[in-house]
Amino acid sequence: MGKNLTSRAEDYSKWYNELVVKADLAENSGVRGCMVIKPYGFSIWEMMQKELDRMFKETGHQNAYFPLFIPKSYFSKEASHVDGFAKECAVVTHYRLKTAEDGSIVVDEKAKLEEELIVRPTSETIIWDTYRKWIQSYRDLPILINQWANVVRWEMRTRLFLRTAEFLWQEGHTAHATEQEAIAEAQQMMHVYADFAEHFMAVPVIKGTKSANERFAGALETYCIEAMMQDGKALQAGTSHFLGQNFAKAFDVKFSDKDGSLNHVWATSWGVSTRLMGALIMTHSDDNGLVLPPKLAPDQVVIVPIYRTDQQYADTVAKGQEIVQLLRQKGIRVKLDARDTHKPGWKFNEYELKGVPIRIALGPKDLENNTIEVARRDTLSKELISQAEAVDYIVTLLDTIQENLFQKAMEMRVSLTHEAEDYEQFKRLLEEKGGFVWAHWDGTTETEERIKAETKATIRCIPLDGPVTPGKCILTGKNSSRKVLFARAY
Amino acid sequence: MGKNLTSRAEDYSKWYNELVVKADLAENSGVRGCMVIKPYGFSIWEMMQKELDRMFKETGHQNAYFPLFIPKSYFSKEASHVDGFAKECAVVTHYRLKTAEDGSIVVDEKAKLEEELIVRPTSETIIWDTYRKWIQSYRDLPILINQWANVVRWEMRTRLFLRTAEFLWQEGHTAHATEQEAIAEAQQMMHVYADFAEHFMAVPVIKGTKSANERFAGALETYCIEAMMQDGKALQAGTSHFLGQNFAKAFDVKFSDKDGSLNHVWATSWGVSTRLMGALIMTHSDDNGLVLPPKLAPDQVVIVPIYRTDQQYADTVAKGQEIVQLLRQKGIRVKLDARDTHKPGWKFNEYELKGVPIRIALGPKDLENNTIEVARRDTLSKELISQAEAVDYIVTLLDTIQENLFQKAMEMRVSLTHEAEDYEQFKRLLEEKGGFVWAHWDGTTETEERIKAETKATIRCIPLDGPVTPGKCILTGKNSSRKVLFARAY
Repeated sequence: MGKNLTSRAEDYSKWYNELVVKADLAENSGVRGCMVIKPYGFSIWEMMQKELDRMFKETGHQNAYFPLFIPKSYFSKEASHVDGFAKECAVVTHYRLKTAEDGSIVVDEKAKLEEELIVRPTSETIIWDTYRKWIQSYRDLPILINQWANVVRWEMRTRLFLRTAEFLWQEGHTAHATEQEAIAEAQQMMHVYADFAEHFMAVPVIKGTKSANERFAGALETYCIEAMMQDGKALQAGTSHFLGQNFAKAFDVKFSDKDGSLNHVWATSWGVSTRLMGALIMTHSDDNGLVLPPKLAPDQVVIVPIYRTDQQYADTVAKGQEIVQLLRQKGIRVKLDARDTHKPGWKFNEYELKGVPIRIALGPKDLENNTIEVARRDTLSKELISQAEAVDYIVTLLDTIQENLFQKAMEMRVSLTHEAEDYEQFKRLLEEKGGFVWAHWDGTTETEERIKAETKATIRCIPLDGPVTPGKCILTGKNSSRKVLFARAY
Repeated sequence: MGKNLTSRAEDYSKWYNELVVKADLAENSGVRGCMVIKPYGFSIWEMMQKELDRMFKETGHQNAYFPLFIPKSYFSKEASHVDGFAKECAVVTHYRLKTAEDGSIVVDEKAKLEEELIVRPTSETIIWDTYRKWIQSYRDLPILINQWANVVRWEMRTRLFLRTAEFLWQEGHTAHATEQEAIAEAQQMMHVYADFAEHFMAVPVIKGTKSANERFAGALETYCIEAMMQDGKALQAGTSHFLGQNFAKAFDVKFSDKDGSLNHVWATSWGVSTRLMGALIMTHSDDNGLVLPPKLAPDQVVIVPIYRTDQQYADTVAKGQEIVQLLRQKGIRVKLDARDTHKPGWKFNEYELKGVPIRIALGPKDLENNTIEVARRDTLSKELISQAEAVDYIVTLLDTIQENLFQKAMEMRVSLTHEAEDYEQFKRLLEEKGGFVWAHWDGTTETEERIKAETKATIRCIPLDGPVTPGKCILTGKNSSRKVLFARAY
């Protein structure tokens, strides 16, 4: 028995890769850089989708679906956009295979497309080409649309969930009559993402804007949420872009305003992806396996009967089913594992590896004493609880675990956040402790890129909150209006 | 005002195309054969997805996700499968664009893939390549997985929802230890599809098996559900395939059985797609627009206030909100359209076009008399109901409408179903009435193809139920064990 998981201390990266596979979350496929999301991993993603989708709808958005393929000419219309994505595009050039004379299957050269199609890396271009047909007047605005879709970016070095050639995501694309309204929308979605990260994933995040250099290709401003992983590397968990009129101009989308004037439309786009799975795993999990926050756990509670005799089996399973019914009435996702093919010890291990928040063991002694043994995944602690109090106890404990995971993650982040007053200290902090480093920066791309080249740290964001005290750039000594947040990142 | 919809009698095909666009369901995109599913259309698809997903999970299936791309070599492993799909494949050959010397964006010829990737037209091959890694022992079986995904088949003649190059679907892929179990699974899913079609879509279907000629590429048996549209053409609404050991053999997927023997695994696959939207639209809708069954209507009830003065506006809207609250408490999806920018007549038209099952009008007279005016979309009839009875009345009426739509569709199908005793009668029935024609067939592909060439009618299915009386083939006069179901089809 045992999970044979490499420990985080030994090799964090190896620990992550092993955990993702052993906990049945995902695995590499036979297609370079593309992953298979396994049922257990997918069920967690479905929980995320469900909550995000609800939040999007509550803020007035509707789902729709746009084509997978983007004609090359569309793609080329917004200059900085094509620059940003051209180097990592899957390109469809033919639409037929045929059997060659030697019997092998080959591309039919006669079926060459007149214009190549790009497999969408993101959908601004195809969507704005559509919005042109939908928007004539201010009465058609705002358009508040989201799409759940797969996208492809031909990454050379891939890692399960964190960076894959194909990934799943949602992309919101909105159109507005005024600049102000579009900025407010982009900011709102950053807050929605932060809310989701903190209250469902139990992952504390820092909200801010990206430096010009790190902005989305085609955006005037990119809002983001940044999280800190246990190994001291940052992870960008979601972005929301104010696109100005760039795409409206590229696709000629104008509307007649109330005063009769004809103006270009203002735009936003925003997205989170299966990368969130990586953030979830790396924030909470430990050397025993996955740790899931109750709000996103497909099974919040698992009940394992302990028995020797057939009678004990029948009795513990019957009592287990009773508890299942009571917990389900409270809306708790609970499973009774009555499989006779696996020993309790194996099951304990399994549910620890899979990160189930609460495990209940129920043996003959418990039946005598009217107790259950409740084990918490987050603290690995156990407690004997009377059956009479069980339901209330579990209901409260799920909230406690959710809260505790957030607090632990917050403490971890605080312990991995430092301030640097000069470049030497900055480099030392990154080398010795990793994590977030607050430091003054002169606001230029040149300085940012030199720091990146020399330290591998990037500006994660210019935080919305936090101290605004002027100082001197750690690299150039030039004036800086405030410290920004640096880190090495995923 | 008015919808300016071509009538069905005038041009059924044009009526359909106009309706899909005007009711905001979908439209053609700038990408050949690919559609944009608009928010209203997508919300109906989401309703379908939700119910189907629930039914799949209740029958023990889990969702997962497999890659969009399939290496050409995988695709070629199952001979009849590649034959079936090779002629309509989108092929990815390159993974990068670059800027040419003249500034245009071109495919980077240096970034040519060693092996071409096929955009999945269906996922048997990539999934069975994965199952090989998952299956060693009988303990790993059955595997019951479903995937919600986009797929691409390069159709030359496309129509919104009915036949598009890219479409959305679900595809179930299961693996079993025995032939019997796999066949039972394939049959079960046909029944699930029929249940969904009849009880949610209100579309009566005929269950059966396909003739060898019409089987899925790689299947030993294809189970299907067939529906009849108002214009007398049949529509295949869902298929479920017993794949035998074909894919297990092609991908070398074996398991050690309880007795220690090593055997190939048995497989099924099954799917329904956005094509169901076409079936839904064409079964119920009329010359005024869409007609939706209440169970799949995003808005089941819409309330339209009627007013002249500001006071009347305030009063009718307030009463409308009251009714909204009461109906929502009953779980009814209801919307109050209080927009002051559109006249009631415009709204009536709009909701008729969009197929909302029940429209409530509420004016000053109604406030005086404590009444509401209830209009049914299915019968276009109106009734005055006392406000006190409104909630109970609406709850019951939604069920009545759901049932009535099914009955109407069933009557339509009955009126469009005939029996032919000889080939002359067969051809005459097809020409004069269209619809389903029961006829004897000698069981050979040759006869089937000759009938198709001469009449454009195909064997829709060999029904599971229905009379089993022997006779003589209408074309060859050879022996036939039973009549089968012919029709011209979408």
